[in-house]
Amino acid sequence: MIQRLVDGIKRTEAPIVVGLDPKVDFIPKRILDAKLGEFGQTAEAVAESFFEFNKEIVDHVYDLVPAVKPQIAMYEQFGIPGLIAYKKTIDYCHEKGLIVIADVKRGDIGSTSESYALSHLGRTKVGDITIPGFDADFATVNPYLGSDGVKPFIDVCNKFDKGIFVLVKTSNPSSGELQDKIADGKPLYETVGSLVETWGAESMDGAYSNVGAVVGATYPEMGKVLRDIMPHAFILVPGYGAQGGKGSDLVHFFDKDGLGAIVNSSRGIIAAWKNEKFADPEKEAVGEAARAAVIDMKEDIGSALRA
Amino acid sequence: MIQRLVDGIKRTEAPIVVGLDPKVDFIPKRILDAKLGEFGQTAEAVAESFFEFNKEIVDHVYDLVPAVKPQIAMYEQFGIPGLIAYKKTIDYCHEKGLIVIADVKRGDIGSTSESYALSHLGRTKVGDITIPGFDADFATVNPYLGSDGVKPFIDVCNKFDKGIFVLVKTSNPSSGELQDKIADGKPLYETVGSLVETWGAESMDGAYSNVGAVVGATYPEMGKVLRDIMPHAFILVPGYGAQGGKGSDLVHFFDKDGLGAIVNSSRGIIAAWKNEKFADPEKEAVGEAARAAVIDMKEDIGSALRA
Repeated sequence: MIQRLVDGIKRTEAPIVVGLDPKVDFIPKRILDAKLGEFGQTAEAVAESFFEFNKEIVDHVYDLVPAVKPQIAMYEQFGIPGLIAYKKTIDYCHEKGLIVIADVKRGDIGSTSESYALSHLGRTKVGDITIPGFDADFATVNPYLGSDGVKPFIDVCNKFDKGIFVLVKTSNPSSGELQDKIADGKPLYETVGSLVETWGAESMDGAYSNVGAVVGATYPEMGKVLRDIMPHAFILVPGYGAQGGKGSDLVHFFDKDGLGAIVNSSRGIIAAWKNEKFADPEKEAVGEAARAAVIDMKEDIGSALRA
Repeated sequence: MIQRLVDGIKRTEAPIVVGLDPKVDFIPKRILDAKLGEFGQTAEAVAESFFEFNKEIVDHVYDLVPAVKPQIAMYEQFGIPGLIAYKKTIDYCHEKGLIVIADVKRGDIGSTSESYALSHLGRTKVGDITIPGFDADFATVNPYLGSDGVKPFIDVCNKFDKGIFVLVKTSNPSSGELQDKIADGKPLYETVGSLVETWGAESMDGAYSNVGAVVGATYPEMGKVLRDIMPHAFILVPGYGAQGGKGSDLVHFFDKDGLGAIVNSSRGIIAAWKNEKFADPEKEAVGEAARAAVIDMKEDIGSALRA
């Protein structure tokens, strides 16, 4: 699966993933009002407005980027209707040829992790047949429970040609409380990085492994170290834009070929219609503004990589 | 909310939570065949059989224990129908007066953690009204992302009178890979334990905080240390029974009043009908065997605490 992502990045020349993390505040009035009119003040109304909103964005960016990353929490907040919209979003993105990275940050032990992996990446046996769950292409995984928690995901990836990104160093201000603790003479995130490289050895797909890592754009120096520790791990980089990461911070996450990393932007793209840099907010031009923001981001990262 | 759990433990004299973690292998043929007949080879068939199975167990144990703990992964594996069965299970347990601990192990940052917290414990604004998501009473939370990831859960707990259990030391064999790393002169799980005590200070409810901890029965010596580090944290103890933890291992998790901990058993109770100690497997006596297994567990823990 990681080779498909590499091919997509080469084709689009955009190591960019669009974070489909809708919030009620990001939904233009014309969409939300229509759905509230149709479904009343219900979770269905919000969920359906999320899906309509996502479609407008996807329709305007699917040719520019290789992948999208829906954050499941945004949908899970609206219960079953929200998760139906999440699944419809995944299916719609697949129809448009996009790779889907499920930002689920799951992690448990043994057969429980296997259940999560089958839910998000695999297929489950029912009677004589197998059925898919949410059927994304990649999932993010939390490593706090150790190998027992991660290996069931890798087994499912190997069986179904899927991939994971393991949380190594997250983009948030307090990520260092545990992740930066010095043990065995090095910060914990380096230990996790070494584990990612080890775990990934049995899941190679071209030059990279289907076991990748999450490293926040907000910690570029740590990204540089982790790039060296994990030569076969693709790095999913959150924290660009709204969280403070800039194109020039990102160069260390890439390898010498300009590959090895893919940068996420959520709010900066999906809420671009509210940003006067990209559109007149009055016009609620969700798709057009998202497209302009992706092109702007592509140029920011491209010029940093060329520098 | 934690005071409700304490009251329930005192009333039932059972510091026991029944883990509602159904698997296809645990479902008796009479239930599964009926649902496959009704729904065909679909996720609905499995999901509905999970719910029927859970009902039989709950109907036979609700007067013996204060709480249940559904593991969402088991349901999530079956996609939307699975999650509908999960929600129906929560609602049914509430009807029976049980406290519901959602074993979701969620954790993200900022507004994303808030979304998870609202999904599982809170209510979300839609138009002029608020609507619940899955509406459990407690949720388990992963601390790898630090305070940014946990505090939004605590805010939601404070607003809606709910609680969380933060993963401190998990029951699985490889939990030590990260959790036991020595940093600042102590293992990481002690650092997390101290954070739990600190985080919980603003959420006191009686003698304990609504911010509790998960510490595996399989590590009793660590449980003893953590009991001291976190005097106000209730400890949710997985790993009893099938994972190897015994009643005598558990005494250190409790405080001098015999409170402060609640022990989970899943397979040992819900699959007791397959265990000749509790029932003739041919009879598929799910509920009766579960009841016998709870009584057996209550005696095992009670005698250890009295010793």
